[in-house]
Amino acid sequence: MSVPGDPAGVDLVVTGLRELVTCEPALGDGLLGVIPEAAMAAAAGRVVWVGPQSRLASAVGIPPAARQLDAHGRVGLPGFVDSHTHLVHAGSREHEYALRAPGASYQEIAAAGGGILSTVRATRAASVDELVELALPRLATLLRHGTTTVEIKSGYGLTTADELKMLEAIRRLGELQPVEVHATFCGAHEIPPEFKGRPDAYVDLVVDEMLPAVAERRLARYVDVFCEEGVFSVAQARRILEAGAQRGLRAKFHADEFVTLGGAELAAEIGALSADHLLRARPEGVARMKEAGVTAALLPGTAFFLGLPYAPARAFLETGARVALASDFNPGSSMGCNLQLVMTMAVSQMKMSPEEALLGVTLNAAHAMGLEGEVGSLRPGAWCDMLLADVPNWRHLSYVYGVNHVSRVLKRGWLVVSR
Amino acid sequence: MSVPGDPAGVDLVVTGLRELVTCEPALGDGLLGVIPEAAMAAAAGRVVWVGPQSRLASAVGIPPAARQLDAHGRVGLPGFVDSHTHLVHAGSREHEYALRAPGASYQEIAAAGGGILSTVRATRAASVDELVELALPRLATLLRHGTTTVEIKSGYGLTTADELKMLEAIRRLGELQPVEVHATFCGAHEIPPEFKGRPDAYVDLVVDEMLPAVAERRLARYVDVFCEEGVFSVAQARRILEAGAQRGLRAKFHADEFVTLGGAELAAEIGALSADHLLRARPEGVARMKEAGVTAALLPGTAFFLGLPYAPARAFLETGARVALASDFNPGSSMGCNLQLVMTMAVSQMKMSPEEALLGVTLNAAHAMGLEGEVGSLRPGAWCDMLLADVPNWRHLSYVYGVNHVSRVLKRGWLVVSR
Repeated sequence: MSVPGDPAGVDLVVTGLRELVTCEPALGDGLLGVIPEAAMAAAAGRVVWVGPQSRLASAVGIPPAARQLDAHGRVGLPGFVDSHTHLVHAGSREHEYALRAPGASYQEIAAAGGGILSTVRATRAASVDELVELALPRLATLLRHGTTTVEIKSGYGLTTADELKMLEAIRRLGELQPVEVHATFCGAHEIPPEFKGRPDAYVDLVVDEMLPAVAERRLARYVDVFCEEGVFSVAQARRILEAGAQRGLRAKFHADEFVTLGGAELAAEIGALSADHLLRARPEGVARMKEAGVTAALLPGTAFFLGLPYAPARAFLETGARVALASDFNPGSSMGCNLQLVMTMAVSQMKMSPEEALLGVTLNAAHAMGLEGEVGSLRPGAWCDMLLADVPNWRHLSYVYGVNHVSRVLKRGWLVVSR
Repeated sequence: MSVPGDPAGVDLVVTGLRELVTCEPALGDGLLGVIPEAAMAAAAGRVVWVGPQSRLASAVGIPPAARQLDAHGRVGLPGFVDSHTHLVHAGSREHEYALRAPGASYQEIAAAGGGILSTVRATRAASVDELVELALPRLATLLRHGTTTVEIKSGYGLTTADELKMLEAIRRLGELQPVEVHATFCGAHEIPPEFKGRPDAYVDLVVDEMLPAVAERRLARYVDVFCEEGVFSVAQARRILEAGAQRGLRAKFHADEFVTLGGAELAAEIGALSADHLLRARPEGVARMKEAGVTAALLPGTAFFLGLPYAPARAFLETGARVALASDFNPGSSMGCNLQLVMTMAVSQMKMSPEEALLGVTLNAAHAMGLEGEVGSLRPGAWCDMLLADVPNWRHLSYVYGVNHVSRVLKRGWLVVSR
């Protein structure tokens, strides 16, 4: 179960783990690679060894200056990876949430000043500094609940200047605080009012002006499109995603959420990193995604918040497709960022096993971001992003729900949360 | 909007409330009686005045020795009341939860050693001290999430000695920590293995031996029966609840959860404080509950955890019935105690308004326990059980979900949580 690593330069040792969930089957028991009574050693922020604590001394030379952290019987696991969020935004839509409960329609909400365009108005009116100030406490909440790597999208600007402003805010957030931030350019999130009835003209703007500006400034790693009836067609999505690929941006996009358009098939065709939502994806499409190695990113919090049916996760899992789970944190359709609760939703609502749910917010979420060698597991060589949870065993992470089990968070070997 | 109270003896003043949700329409705006820019004064643990902060000095004489708490712009609201829990128990059933996800039946779970009888075995094997030790951290978690008054049931003992042991543990818990605890005798929670096939003989034991022993020791305020197909019939439930009433125990019981048995009608007939669950209650039954002043206590966490349809809350509300929301915290069907999340479930899944949801965990929950003059609102005369929440307005309590917004908790005027 233990894997020898290079012991040279060990500067951190974590001991006293009741169990360590590595999320690498080869490293321990079962699908999650669980090591009982475990320890971990890291060097320069990366894992160099995991194994039974009884073998620590013989496996790794521990310099006297190495930091030592006693987990006091807590459970260790990889930091969570949230592969789909709209965390940067201005404004708030709690009134829309209240209107929706007794049955207000999308049109009524829009007429009352709600909907995505209300977030666009507020975000356009905000400065970079304001967007950063608004997002910092949200990131602190994510981190406290165990998320150590997050994807954040633009898409509430919908002009070149405002999209760049959002991406600039996302870049600054990654520099200011410990959560690792990766940006997605999502200029094609909605058709802005200025282009109403002229979607192709807006796609021209996205492809000809926004994408080059984003790529030139190296402000995004991924490109996203809301491929949906009434928003962007499969043909428009393909054009934007292919243009992004030419500029080095990997595709991960909103597919087959409310209507079956063929987003899953498009994701397979273009080799996207992930297709997200997929409530209405065709089984054939999902099977093609599996063949192409595209990760299915499911967002149960959105179904929960909107009171919609959940994505058919078991059908996806039975094709062998890789399933990630993300929060979709956004002001309109899911103001939730607690991935422990997302796991409970996956088990109780989507009938995923607790193992599948935990892989969904760790290793498979890393795959959805193309970061599987770096985060999402505690294999030697990966970043030492590690949570210590106050639970008797890892199953309690989703069994006891609606609370925060995470009491310590390490990011690249540094203790960034202790409560 | 302000209500004059007796200013003599004021020993606590809370100022700097961005808004104070009193849960008394007469005291402020709307159904929740919200007072903007508010303050509160208390004496000997009870509220004596609430109103706009600008009127505090003229309304109440503040002795120099009075404690002053600055809310720094937080939102104030009554402490939550959880009217239905099984918080005292031994053992843990996370494996059963894992089995249920891929579709294991009740029978398969029981055959694998799960189900309520596994909790009965573990609870019978535990001492009073052990039950207290297990429950204390759970109560601390409830309190941290804003619950200041809780109902706790027996019902995992199912022998006279083991039921008394559970109730003794519940009594001790109320004496040991700040959450106000009220006990329910629920000896008729299940038919114990010793009485398999002889339910009436077990009802004899409950009525002739357990109830007198519980009443003599003054160990319970309420009596509960699991009135359900395969457990206790309406006739058996009536017999137990009436026998309880003769001994001074008010009825609040599990009614019409999985099968329509007529529990709602029985609750109306006997004048129960509350009928709980009600997923399958007949509209006529709910209408009769309304006439009889019986509170409908809905437990959405259980539907969530089990992946079942939610109770039709709107149908109940349209009859004018009073609707409370509780956690049902228990090891088999809902390991959740966060009433902020229960509010989100009520709005997103049961289409209650945010106001109705907040009343459900405060004033209406107090009604479900017969404590409406004491807890669940911040009217003058009530206990000063008060939460300070880190939200821009009260709607965020359910809009931003899966986290804990409560940063300060006052129980009877004492600051018992500060984080």
